[in-house]
Amino acid sequence: MGWAETLIAVDWGTTNRRAYRLGRGGAVEDRLEDDKGILAVPAGGFPAAVEEIRARLGDLPMLMGGMVGSNRGWVEAPYVPCPAGLPELAGSLKWVEEGRVAIVPGVCFAEGEAADVMRGEEVQILGAYGEGTIPADALVCHPGTHNKWVKLENGRIVRFRTVMTGELFNLLREHSILSDLLAGETVPGPAFDAGVARGLACAELTADLFSIRARVLLGKAPREEAASYASGLLIGNDVRTGLAAAGRARGDGPVYVMGRPDLTRLYAAALAQAGREAQELEGDEAFLCGIRHLAELVQ
Amino acid sequence: MGWAETLIAVDWGTTNRRAYRLGRGGAVEDRLEDDKGILAVPAGGFPAAVEEIRARLGDLPMLMGGMVGSNRGWVEAPYVPCPAGLPELAGSLKWVEEGRVAIVPGVCFAEGEAADVMRGEEVQILGAYGEGTIPADALVCHPGTHNKWVKLENGRIVRFRTVMTGELFNLLREHSILSDLLAGETVPGPAFDAGVARGLACAELTADLFSIRARVLLGKAPREEAASYASGLLIGNDVRTGLAAAGRARGDGPVYVMGRPDLTRLYAAALAQAGREAQELEGDEAFLCGIRHLAELVQ
Repeated sequence: MGWAETLIAVDWGTTNRRAYRLGRGGAVEDRLEDDKGILAVPAGGFPAAVEEIRARLGDLPMLMGGMVGSNRGWVEAPYVPCPAGLPELAGSLKWVEEGRVAIVPGVCFAEGEAADVMRGEEVQILGAYGEGTIPADALVCHPGTHNKWVKLENGRIVRFRTVMTGELFNLLREHSILSDLLAGETVPGPAFDAGVARGLACAELTADLFSIRARVLLGKAPREEAASYASGLLIGNDVRTGLAAAGRARGDGPVYVMGRPDLTRLYAAALAQAGREAQELEGDEAFLCGIRHLAELVQ
Repeated sequence: MGWAETLIAVDWGTTNRRAYRLGRGGAVEDRLEDDKGILAVPAGGFPAAVEEIRARLGDLPMLMGGMVGSNRGWVEAPYVPCPAGLPELAGSLKWVEEGRVAIVPGVCFAEGEAADVMRGEEVQILGAYGEGTIPADALVCHPGTHNKWVKLENGRIVRFRTVMTGELFNLLREHSILSDLLAGETVPGPAFDAGVARGLACAELTADLFSIRARVLLGKAPREEAASYASGLLIGNDVRTGLAAAGRARGDGPVYVMGRPDLTRLYAAALAQAGREAQELEGDEAFLCGIRHLAELVQ
């Protein structure tokens, strides 16, 4: 197969999918983005969902990453254990159609009682390393539904820790007693910073969350700042957990914060408050770098 | 009015209500229990909902506690600030119908950045004190949707801290990526104890929750123990927070754990693991004690 030729890269997540036609030089020639994440595909519906992509972008080889390789996806691509770099991922592709359609495996970490899994972020993180945007030894923070704190050594993921901050915030906003308070916008600023300070300093999250409501009820904090404070509280807790899990990094360089810009700026602000420099990176571009490097390795 | 005569006590919560006809000596002569919590009462529907109770239990004076006095309830009964004992509650009843229908106010605590509120638990806790079941100086733990850690001094609530453990567990069970894992039964035992140990020792709850899924995916923990482990983890975190908030109690006597027996036994097990003796008390009976003592005070 001609991976170095034109191919389709698919970032197929739980609720969204993005597909790109990459030309010879790796440039994006066309793209498709919709909400047909894996949970929107009916049982047995993946072949048809893949044909939709090909009908739009061309009858080409495909390389896919993300939840499409999970046990709820198309075909399960077993996790590659740490340490995991681009060569390990390339060597463990799950071929759905030999030589023509493959799914990139996720990565797992297990040590003593600790256990963790990722699926999708590895393509972005190792892609950024392959591109030279992230050094071979680095601490990466990848916010999203499930934030990942990832240690890279010699260009390989050696350990990581997931903090389900995004999901918890969404649960609280959609279904909890705090729902009406958290409906507002989350913005950096004094309320966010106050939340971060509390989250960094103190480990009583489940109580601190309730205090948000009590403070508003008792007139001690303005209702319109509750969402930013809660976001800061959760992200401050997240940063405390992530930096503790990472331990002291060699030389303590910047933390590379990768993902959606609206999230990376909040994490960068919280890291600054924790005394750490942050460097923000865009996740979608890094995904394409990862797919290009993997395609080269399986030629 | 004749509070020392027959009256109707109503424990009117968010999702349920319980009403009791108390005879002269305070004995329960009849009762009603249904799911007409305040959220099930339509706007303007409280007079009719109260008439239903009277039609069933008699046209008698009524004393009500719980969320019926919140800003989502019938008539708002403003919080009484700490220190709050039976006399303070009795002196701040919100009369809906003068001398005949009253709502017991909730209690609030505010000090520096700290802020907290309760509505309903105060009747039970002070009722148990009034009855002599809890001493005048005590630490009370009141699990439920929102667990309360309450310090009693000289028979008054002087400070408290809410931990939203029950709500968080329900959110995770009903709406999160852990839903299928948490559907099982939560029982005391080795998995619960392991969760408690982690929750007592470590403050990385939002990450530890995700590890539950990873451990099952990687075959490091049996799926059927996930719910008990998660329950232990959350309750261990709760106990760590609650004991820290309480500080060292005078003489460090037992912690009085009040509420539904299925919950109090889990908290008692976690407290034992934290090296604290627990004494379990039934919440419904304590509510009736509180109403009886308040009725005497307003005679």
